[in-house]
Amino acid sequence: MTNSETGLKERQFKIVGTRPLRPDGIDKVTGRARFGADMAAPGMLVGKILRSPHAHARIRSIDATKALVLPGVKAVVTHEDFAEVGADLQDVLENVMAQDKALYDGHAVAAVAAISAGVARKALRLIEVDYEILPHVTDVEAAMAAEAPVLHDDIVTSGVEPAPKTPSNVVHRHEFGHGDVAEGLAQADVVIEHDFKTAATHQGYIEPHACVGSVGPDGQGELWCCTQGHFWVRNTCAALLGMDVSHLRVTASEIGGGFGGKTTVFIDPVALALSRKAGRPVKIVMSREEVFRASGPTSSTAMTVKIGVRRDGRITAGEAVLKFQGGAFAGSPVDLGAMTAFACYDLEHVKTVAYDVVTNRPKQAAYRAPGAPMAAFAVESVIDELASKIGMDPIELRLKNAVENGSQSSYGPKFGPVGLVETLVAAREHEHYTAPLGANQGRGIASGFWFNFGGQTCVSLNINADGSVALAVGTPDIGGSRASMGQMAAEELGIGYDKVRTIVADTASLGYNDISEGSRVTFSTGLATIQAARDAIGKLCGRAAQTWGISPDAVVWEDGYARPAGANAGEFPPLSLAEIAETAAKTGGPIAGHCEVNAAGAGVSFATHLVDAEVDPETGRAKILRYTVVQDAGKAIHPSYVEGQYQGGAVQGVGWALNEEYIYGEDGRLQNPSFLDYRIPVASDLPMIDTVIVEVPNPGHPYGVRGVGETSIVPPLAAIANAVSAAAGVRLTELPMSPPRVLRGIDEAAANGKA
Amino acid sequence: MTNSETGLKERQFKIVGTRPLRPDGIDKVTGRARFGADMAAPGMLVGKILRSPHAHARIRSIDATKALVLPGVKAVVTHEDFAEVGADLQDVLENVMAQDKALYDGHAVAAVAAISAGVARKALRLIEVDYEILPHVTDVEAAMAAEAPVLHDDIVTSGVEPAPKTPSNVVHRHEFGHGDVAEGLAQADVVIEHDFKTAATHQGYIEPHACVGSVGPDGQGELWCCTQGHFWVRNTCAALLGMDVSHLRVTASEIGGGFGGKTTVFIDPVALALSRKAGRPVKIVMSREEVFRASGPTSSTAMTVKIGVRRDGRITAGEAVLKFQGGAFAGSPVDLGAMTAFACYDLEHVKTVAYDVVTNRPKQAAYRAPGAPMAAFAVESVIDELASKIGMDPIELRLKNAVENGSQSSYGPKFGPVGLVETLVAAREHEHYTAPLGANQGRGIASGFWFNFGGQTCVSLNINADGSVALAVGTPDIGGSRASMGQMAAEELGIGYDKVRTIVADTASLGYNDISEGSRVTFSTGLATIQAARDAIGKLCGRAAQTWGISPDAVVWEDGYARPAGANAGEFPPLSLAEIAETAAKTGGPIAGHCEVNAAGAGVSFATHLVDAEVDPETGRAKILRYTVVQDAGKAIHPSYVEGQYQGGAVQGVGWALNEEYIYGEDGRLQNPSFLDYRIPVASDLPMIDTVIVEVPNPGHPYGVRGVGETSIVPPLAAIANAVSAAAGVRLTELPMSPPRVLRGIDEAAANGKA
Repeated sequence: MTNSETGLKERQFKIVGTRPLRPDGIDKVTGRARFGADMAAPGMLVGKILRSPHAHARIRSIDATKALVLPGVKAVVTHEDFAEVGADLQDVLENVMAQDKALYDGHAVAAVAAISAGVARKALRLIEVDYEILPHVTDVEAAMAAEAPVLHDDIVTSGVEPAPKTPSNVVHRHEFGHGDVAEGLAQADVVIEHDFKTAATHQGYIEPHACVGSVGPDGQGELWCCTQGHFWVRNTCAALLGMDVSHLRVTASEIGGGFGGKTTVFIDPVALALSRKAGRPVKIVMSREEVFRASGPTSSTAMTVKIGVRRDGRITAGEAVLKFQGGAFAGSPVDLGAMTAFACYDLEHVKTVAYDVVTNRPKQAAYRAPGAPMAAFAVESVIDELASKIGMDPIELRLKNAVENGSQSSYGPKFGPVGLVETLVAAREHEHYTAPLGANQGRGIASGFWFNFGGQTCVSLNINADGSVALAVGTPDIGGSRASMGQMAAEELGIGYDKVRTIVADTASLGYNDISEGSRVTFSTGLATIQAARDAIGKLCGRAAQTWGISPDAVVWEDGYARPAGANAGEFPPLSLAEIAETAAKTGGPIAGHCEVNAAGAGVSFATHLVDAEVDPETGRAKILRYTVVQDAGKAIHPSYVEGQYQGGAVQGVGWALNEEYIYGEDGRLQNPSFLDYRIPVASDLPMIDTVIVEVPNPGHPYGVRGVGETSIVPPLAAIANAVSAAAGVRLTELPMSPPRVLRGIDEAAANGKA
Repeated sequence: MTNSETGLKERQFKIVGTRPLRPDGIDKVTGRARFGADMAAPGMLVGKILRSPHAHARIRSIDATKALVLPGVKAVVTHEDFAEVGADLQDVLENVMAQDKALYDGHAVAAVAAISAGVARKALRLIEVDYEILPHVTDVEAAMAAEAPVLHDDIVTSGVEPAPKTPSNVVHRHEFGHGDVAEGLAQADVVIEHDFKTAATHQGYIEPHACVGSVGPDGQGELWCCTQGHFWVRNTCAALLGMDVSHLRVTASEIGGGFGGKTTVFIDPVALALSRKAGRPVKIVMSREEVFRASGPTSSTAMTVKIGVRRDGRITAGEAVLKFQGGAFAGSPVDLGAMTAFACYDLEHVKTVAYDVVTNRPKQAAYRAPGAPMAAFAVESVIDELASKIGMDPIELRLKNAVENGSQSSYGPKFGPVGLVETLVAAREHEHYTAPLGANQGRGIASGFWFNFGGQTCVSLNINADGSVALAVGTPDIGGSRASMGQMAAEELGIGYDKVRTIVADTASLGYNDISEGSRVTFSTGLATIQAARDAIGKLCGRAAQTWGISPDAVVWEDGYARPAGANAGEFPPLSLAEIAETAAKTGGPIAGHCEVNAAGAGVSFATHLVDAEVDPETGRAKILRYTVVQDAGKAIHPSYVEGQYQGGAVQGVGWALNEEYIYGEDGRLQNPSFLDYRIPVASDLPMIDTVIVEVPNPGHPYGVRGVGETSIVPPLAAIANAVSAAAGVRLTELPMSPPRVLRGIDEAAANGKA
C-alpha cells in the first residue's frame, strides 16, 4: 500500500461518510417529484406506436392513408421520417423504427400523433402494414445453428479465422485469457465442467419510458424525458433527426428506476419526429406491455465452464465458452461476461471464448454489470462444486486464488489495490457464515467483479451571495447521487451539507456528460465535483488575498475559511466562504468553480455474497432465508445509499435467480409481458438484506471512491444457485430456479440415485 | 481617439453587424414560446390577492376564518407568513404584503390559494379586514407640504442641514453639480425658467406578471416566473421567505415586455408563501387592473428648470429642482433624473437638487432610463426656448455646448469617448431636419443621455461533439439578446451563427447575473460571452497542441481554426473547431469556456431625436407626423434589434408625451386601470419611426458596444413637447399633452394675447 493510499485510509472526513437526507427524498415520497409522464406542454398531442405482431417479417409496405384522414390525427411517422445515420447509430435507429424488416415481436413499425390516446389507438388500427412473415429464432443456440433463419444478410461472423463467407446470426467471436488451459488442466487433481443456461430478464424499473418532445418550424427542439443520460439522448436524437446537437435541448426528469435499461432511446426520437411533422409537442408513455416487448431486457445465455483445481486448493486453469443472444441487433454484453468471468482469480492458465448472437428478440440493453452476473453464475457454481469435491471451505478456496494488488487479470491489465480478499475475510468472519442451518436449507457463497467506469463529466459549482452553493451536475440521479455530490462539495469547501443544493442541469446549461451507467457517477461526477470545488477554492483564496492585499500564494483554505499563511500567517482574521461570497460583487463578480474531464482511474470493485435458502422438496419452491452482501466501496460517501445499492443488487439477483424470465411461444411472441406473469420479488419474498461495507480506497479518486451499483448484482445468481443447490441436494445449472425447474432437478437426481 | 478605438472602428466583423433570425422568433409568432402563465404543475392551485380599496388605512386586523373553511381553500397568507428581512428589503417586503398599514389603492393585504379561480375569488370576499381609514395624498407637491398626511412615521428627511426632527414624506434631498450657478446666470444674456409637471405612466408591457411557485415540506422551492432578473428574484424571494438562496431554483419564462417594470417582485414571494403553506404549487397571474393598481408605474413629477445663455450660444449656467414621488416607499429615480438632467452639456456652472417623495401610490418601478425622460423634458424644453430666444438653430446651440471626450459631466465623472456631437451632426444632416412643414405643424428636437450599466454576469459556453455550441447566459432576453450573444460567440469562435444556440439558464445552473436592466445586457453579457469564448479558444488551442505534440503557445486561433504558428507554422494542417470537438473525449474531455465577471466599462450613450407634430387647433389633438431617432450604439451587434430599441423608445415616449397618465380620484383611488382608459399608442397613432445608428465605439467592450435600450426613451418627451409647442404656438410644460391640456394651452395663450 502506497503512502497516498494510507493517507486516504486515514483522512478524517466531516461530511463524507455521514447519512444526510437526499435532496429528492421528500419530493419523491410526497409525489411532488416530476417523472417522465408528469410533463405537459400547451397543445400537446399523444403519440402511440404501432408494433409488429410478428417475430420476423419483411415489411412490404405501410399505408397510413386511412389513419391520416381520421379526425384528430396530426401526424404519422415511419422509418422514412428519420435521417441517415452513421454505422455507429444504424442499429439504434433500426430498433427505434423498423426499416425493411420487423425483427421481433413488438418492434416499432410506425407511430401516430393525435389529439387523444383514444384517437391515436384507433389510428394505429387503421395503418395497414403488408408483412411477409419469415421464419424466426429466439434461442441463442438455435440461432447459432447452421440451419437457423438469418436475421441480417450483412452480418458475417467476425473474429474467426478463416473469415466465413456466408451470413450468420453470430456477430462476433471474442477471446480473452493467457497461458495454456490444456497444460493447466493437466496439472489439476479435479476438473469439473458444466453447461449452464440463463433466461432473459428485465430490469423491472417501476417507471415506464415516457417523454415529451417538441420541434418547432425553425428546427429547434426540446425534449423532456426519463433517462439515465440526457446528453447521450440529445446527441443520439439529434443524429436520428438530422439536427445540430445544439438545436436540441434535453431535460432529464426524475427517474423511477433504470438499472441500465434507460441508457438508450426507444420513444424519444419518435416523439420528436412526430412533433416535427405535427408542429405540436408530443407525449409518448410506454405501457408496461410495451416495456416488456420492446425495451431492452438482458441477454439469455448458454455457457460452458471447465475449471481444474489441485487438492491444495490452487486452481490450475479455467475455461469458459459463453453464448449470449442480444436480441435483434449486435452488441450483447458477452464480451463483458467473458472479461469478468474469471476476474476474481489469479490464474496462470485462463481462456474465455464469447459469441455475440442475434435472435428475434428485442435489442438487449444494459442491466447492472452487463454480462457479468451470468458469467459469475457459471464460474462460481463450478468453483463451489470444486470446493466441495476437494473438501475445502469455499471461502478458503477463493482466498487461495483471489486476485490482489499487482495480480494479472484474466482479461488483460494488472490490478492495482483491490478489495476481494478483504470481502472474503469479512464474509468468513461474519456471524452469518457459521450460523446453523435446518433441514432442506443450504448456504451459498459467491464472489463477483465489475470494472467500474469513468468517462466524460462536467460540473459547475456556483457560490451564492449568502454563502450557499448551487452545484450543477449532468448525470441523472439514479441512486442518491445528488446527496453524495453535495456531500463531496461540502466536504471540500468546508461548509454544511445543507448549504449545498445539487441539481441535474439540462443539456444546454452544462457540457457533455456520459450516461449514469457503469457505476461511474459517484466516482467521476464526484471527482469533477471535488475538482470544481477546488477551482472555486482557488478563486475564494484569490479574493481573500485581494481583500488583504497579499499574494494569493500566501492564502490557504482550511475548514471553510481562507487564512493568511506563510509569512502572512495570523496577520488577518480568517474569512469564511460566506464572508467572501457576500462581497464577491466588489472583488470581481460571482465566484464559481468548473470542471470538464474525461475521468480515468475508476477503481474496480469486488463483492462476496452469503445466502441461505430453503427448498420445499414437495413443490420445488426456493425461499431466501438470509442474505449478506459484503462489498468493497473504496470509500462510502453516503453509506445508506451504498447499502441501498448492495441491497438492490441482491434483490434483483434474487428475482433473476429464482423467478424472472422472458417466455417466448412457438410463434416467437412474448407470452408474459406483464408483472402478473413476469414475477419480480416482492417484499414478502425477501429477508432483510444485511450489508457490510469494506473500504479499500481507490487511489484514482481523491476520497478513494469506487463505484458500487454494478458489482452488487454480480454474485447473487451464483450465490443463490449455490445455496439452492445445497438445499436441494442437486447442482442446478439453469436459471431461473423456478419451482418446476428445481423440482425437476430433484426428481432427476432421485432418478439417477443421487438424492 | 486612441489606437484601440481606431482599431475598434476598423475591425472587420463577419457576423457582428448582420441581421440573423432571433432564436425565439418563430416560437413567439407561432405561440410555442412559454410565457409566465404558460407553466403548469401537477396539483397546482390558483392564488389570488386581496387588495386594499383604500389609499391609506391602518390595518387593525385580518380575519380569514370564514375564507379558510370555504371548501377548496388551501391556504391564506398575510404579512405574518414572511420572514424578517434586512433594511435593504424591508420596503420590497412591505410592498409585496402590507404590514400594519395599507399605503395605496391596490396594496396587497392578504392572499389565498384555492383549487380554482372561482373559489379563490369567493374566499377573498370572505376575508375580513378591519381598516381604519387615514387621510391620503397622491400628488408630489401636496405630499411635500407641511400639513400633508405622513405615510411613514420613521421617515425623516435626510440630506438636509440641519437634520429635521419630524417625520416627513420627503425621504431625501440630493444635490449634484459644480461651479456657481448664480455667477453663471449673471453672465447670461437670456435666462429662462419654467415649471414642469409630468404624470405617472406605466411601462404597458403586454404580459401581466405571472408565476408558478412551489415549496416542498423539505423547504426546497422552485419558481417559474416572468421577470427581467430571475437571479435577483431568487435572492429576494429566498430572503422574504427565510430560505437559503441555494434552496430556491428560479426559471425565467419568456417575457412579454418588461421595460424595467419586471425588475422587482410583486406576486412571486406570495405564490411561494402560499405554496409553502398549502403544500402544493400555486400559480398567480395578475389581471390588467392589478397590473395598473399594484405593479410599479413611474414617478409623477414637478420640476423647475432655469438656464442662462449668452447670445453666442454658450450656456452659462443650468439649475434644476426635481421633485419625484415614488409611490408609497422611498426610492424614486429622482437622483438619476438629477444626474442626467444636464448630462448632455459641458457647463461651468450647474446644479440640480432632487427630492425623493412618498405618496399614497404604488411603489414606482424602473421604466427605461428611470428618471431621465422627465428631467430631459424639462431641460430640453428650456434649451429649445432659449435657442428660439437668441435666434439660433437648436442643433447649433446644442453643438456649441455638447459634451465630448474629456468633458466634465454635470454629475461627477469625466466622459471618455462619447457620441453626442455625432448624433447632433447626423440629425442636422438628415433630410428630415430641413423637410418643409405645413400649417399647425411644428418640429421638435431634443437630446438625451443614459449611463448604461455593467454588473455581475456569468456565461458558460459548451462545445458539443458535432462542433455546435450551447451558450448559457443568465440575463433574460428582453430585446433579442439571445441573437446578439450568439453572434458575438460565433464571431469570436469563427463559426456560423446557426451553430450557436443561446439559452437563458435557470438560477441553479449558472452563477449570479444582475437583472436585464440599465441597458447592460449587450454590453456585459456580451463581454462575458466573448471572454467565455476566448476561454474556450484557449482550450481548443491546447487540444490542438496536444494532438500535434507542440507547445500550446505555438498555436493560434484564426477564423475557426487552430493553426500551428511561430516555429511550427505550416507544420500541420489547421484543425477546425468541429474537428477538435469531435475528438475531445480522447484529448481530455468536453471543452467549455466560462466567465464570471462584475463588468465595468459600460459606455454612456447619447441620442438626438427629431419629431414633426401637427396640432388640431379645434380639438387640441396632437398627431406625430414624422419621427427620426439618431443614437450612438457604440457598435450595433444586431442592427435590427438596435433599431427596434430606438423605435420602441420613441413609441413609448409618444404615449408618455401625449396620452398616458395615472388619474387618481379625490378618494385616492386609481380611476383608469385599464387599457381602455389608459391610452397607449396604437399603430394608427404612429408614423414609421426612422432610425440612424451612430457608432462611436466604447473602449470598455471588445467590440465597442454601448447599451441602447434606455437612451432611446430619454429625448422623446422633450422632442415631442418642442414639436407640439411649436405647432400649437405655445410652450407646453405639463405632460401628457392630451387634447384638453393642449387646447387649454392654446386658449390661455390666446387669452394672454400670445396666439
